[in-house]
Formats: sequence, C-alpha cells, structure tokens
Amino acid sequence: MQLTEHLRKEGVRKRIAVVCGNDDSTRHAIERAESEGFAEAIRVDGDDAAVRAVELVREGRADILMKGLVNTNDVLRAVLDKEKGILPKGKVLTHITAADIPGHDKLIFFTDPAVIPYPTQEQRRAQVAYIARLCHNFGIDEPRISLIHCNEKVSEKHFPHTAGYAELREEAMRGDFGACIVDGPLDLKTSCCLKSMQTKGIDSPIAGQADALIFPDIEAANVFYKTVTLFCHAETACALQGTLAPVVLPSRADSTDSKFYSLALACLA
Amino acid sequence: MQLTEHLRKEGVRKRIAVVCGNDDSTRHAIERAESEGFAEAIRVDGDDAAVRAVELVREGRADILMKGLVNTNDVLRAVLDKEKGILPKGKVLTHITAADIPGHDKLIFFTDPAVIPYPTQEQRRAQVAYIARLCHNFGIDEPRISLIHCNEKVSEKHFPHTAGYAELREEAMRGDFGACIVDGPLDLKTSCCLKSMQTKGIDSPIAGQADALIFPDIEAANVFYKTVTLFCHAETACALQGTLAPVVLPSRADSTDSKFYSLALACLA
Repeated sequence: MQLTEHLRKEGVRKRIAVVCGNDDSTRHAIERAESEGFAEAIRVDGDDAAVRAVELVREGRADILMKGLVNTNDVLRAVLDKEKGILPKGKVLTHITAADIPGHDKLIFFTDPAVIPYPTQEQRRAQVAYIARLCHNFGIDEPRISLIHCNEKVSEKHFPHTAGYAELREEAMRGDFGACIVDGPLDLKTSCCLKSMQTKGIDSPIAGQADALIFPDIEAANVFYKTVTLFCHAETACALQGTLAPVVLPSRADSTDSKFYSLALACLA
Repeated sequence: MQLTEHLRKEGVRKRIAVVCGNDDSTRHAIERAESEGFAEAIRVDGDDAAVRAVELVREGRADILMKGLVNTNDVLRAVLDKEKGILPKGKVLTHITAADIPGHDKLIFFTDPAVIPYPTQEQRRAQVAYIARLCHNFGIDEPRISLIHCNEKVSEKHFPHTAGYAELREEAMRGDFGACIVDGPLDLKTSCCLKSMQTKGIDSPIAGQADALIFPDIEAANVFYKTVTLFCHAETACALQGTLAPVVLPSRADSTDSKFYSLALACLA
C-alpha cells in the first residue's frame, strides 16, 4: 500500500504505545514498522496495560495507541474515560479507513464504517476536517472529497443530510478545511469514475477522481468496507481519529498486513 | 448470467409491452430475448405510448412493461396513475437487482438501491416476500435471505430497523414467506462468506451462503450496487416489483447486456 512509501519518503517516525501486543500478528506488524523506520514501539503489558498506555499518550510520551491481544472494550473504556482518557471534551471520535482496491488507480480514504451511526452535521463536519488533513499528510495538496448519496440531488424532505452536504461544500469553498475540493451529494460511481460522471451528464469538480468518500451513515460505509474487502480483495488500513493521538484497534482475527497498514495510516493521521 | 439458462430450462415465455423501444440497445436486447425464446415483444410507440403500454398490462394482454428511449418519469407517471395505473392500492413498489459478481459462486439478489429511501417495517416485509418469491422462481427451493446491518446485534435504540429484523425472522420461521431461511441482523461479509462468519464466531443458518440481501436503506443498497458494478465489474439485472406486472426501467446509457438481463429478471419475477 502506498501509505508506507509516503512515510519513508517523509522520514516520519512515531512512538507507538502497544497494549498487550504479544500475539504473533501484532508483534510482526510492529517489527515490520520498526524495520521500515517509521515506528518505535513502547510495549505496555499486564492487567492495567490499557490505562497505562493511554497515560503515555496523555503525557505526550507516545504518538499513537495500538491494541494487541486485549479486549477492545477495555481499551475503549480507557480511551474514553472522562478524567484520564484521551478524547478531549467536544471532540468527535470517528473511524477512518484507507482502501487499496485492485484495479483502481488511487487509494481511497473513507469514513465512517464503525463508530458513528448517523452523523450529525457537526460530526460530519469533523469527518471532513479529519479526512482533509489525512489526505494532506499523505501528500495530496488539494484532495477531492465526495459526499456520498444515492444520487446527486439535494432533498431536504427525504434525505436531510443532503442539505447539510450543501453547507459543507460552501464551508470548503471558503477554506474551512484547508486546500481541498468538497462536492456532493454524488453517488459512489460518479465519485470514482469520470466516464460514469460524464455519461450521467453531471458536472462536478471531483471529476470521478475522489481521494476521499464521506458516507451518509454507518450502514452505507460498512457495506462499502465489507464489499471491497470481500469481493474486490482490497487491502485496508483503519484508525480512530479525534483522540489526542490516533488509535489503532484491529480485530484479533486481522492479518499481520492489515495491522501493519493500520499502523502506517495512524502514523500519517 | 444464470438467469437466462433457468428461463430456457423452464420454458418461460412472456409478452413484453415495450415503450418506444427503437433505440439500438433496447432493440437488440429484445431481439436477443425473442431469439432465446423467453420473450415476445409488443411494440408501443408514439406520444401516448407509456399510457397505452400500461393499459396492455392492466388488461392482461402483456406480462411485463419495459421502457425504451423515453423519459423515465413519463413511464412512472403512467404506472402509478391512481385510476389507470398498475400499482394496486396498498401494494409496495420496490426495486430488485440480481448481481453476478466475478469470483463469487452464486448470483446475489438484493433490494432496494433505487426506490424506497428508508423502508418501513411493512415495506421491508414486502421486500422479503418479493425476493423470496423471485428466488423460488429462479429454482432455489429454500433461499437464504440475509437482513443486512453493520453488525449482528439488535439495537432498538440506535438502529430501530434491527428490532424489525427480529420480527421478520420469526415471521419467516412460521412460514409467512414460504420455504426460506431469513436471518439478521448480519453484516455483508458474514452473509456472503462462511469463513468470515466462522472467524467472528457467529452461528447463522445463512452460513455465508446468502442468495438474497435486504439492505437497511437506499443508501447502503445503492453503495453496494455501485461498488460491485464499478470495482468488481459485476453484471446486473434490475426490475421494479409490486406492480401488476414487473417493470423494466433501464437508464438510456445502459448496455444491451444490461437491458437483456433485466428483461430476463423481469420474466422470472
């Protein structure tokens, strides 16, 4: 995946607080990230490992939090703890994925297949801001961010979120998210395929070249995630954003590759 | 696509009222369906073609309505007309697709990427009934129908539709939809991949072998439709159900193949 090439080129090097990372796939992912030079692991084990790893992040002694063979809920509880956690009050926690889809010429960043059920306008604004910054960190000067809907029409009555899309587009134009192109509502095909856009007679500055997709809700984003991994054999990388430092929360069953790429994504975020 | 083999085997032969079908792709699709023996076209042209074609269906002189080079809204208006249309009062109009995804071993039927925004429980019940019947007509004795969600948990608070899924599962078990297996909430990967199901430790009678997917809403279904066609190069067939006869409403830009397979799907519906 192109993520790691970029980290190498930029000379990025981050300190990773790893919670109980002694299972094979986590250990191998960390070792590979260290040997590629973009990560330095701080191993935290034992019963209160999650709490102590979160403390390392809060004290600025680690740049990223990563979960190994430990219950996801234990880590999330420590992350979200109101006093000792690492989600600042008022910040939006959301899930970002990067997908490398065979046959498609660019990496696609998207949000949110796992955390926010039906984003409010404020949450969606945060999603756009996070993903714009992530694309900038990945070296895309002016990322194209598409606000996904089943078609290209704003319909306040049936789909209130499409009216919010129009607002985000304006906020992007006045520079709220830095250099980027935000457009929508647009459907997935129009967003990722210039020919489809032209066939439908749609004129959008995304021009079928979306770098990032903001899905309307968790159901649509989750279907995209599962479809590209199952049917397209896409490689994916996932991280949580909104916290003081990015959090990598792989499933136990995830492969070494998947954990390695997620770590790389977190190092960019 | 396996649809046409089945039509041949069963000796199906339907009368198609074709509205302004003189464009190349519609004409070629119809000719191919006629030469394969499962369709007999009744061509209806001129200014009031949509109204007259709908009348043929209402009078029982045509089994399927198909749109050619004419505005979709004109056809829909005639179909939905309260006095002279073909949607019986109280019937649910919904959109069904069949997708043949390269590398996947079975055809997947799914609903609804195009018509109903957020199905009510009554509309979703109709979707299950239609798709069960379609699978039966396709020769699947006991179709496996998966109710899609981002995970396998019922959550009345955040996702009220998952509580509805539990009801549908019970209705299926007492035989309301004929012989079929209905389960959910299940995510897309668990529904279509036995290994994913086992890795997650989920026990479902769908067993990763879903014949049909009921998506929670139009956004998720539309993303699935666009993702499998754009990134997996799936062949698809689409039709509207709920009307007195299935309606085929291709886009002008659809290929001959796509129109031909949609006609085949309608002949099964």
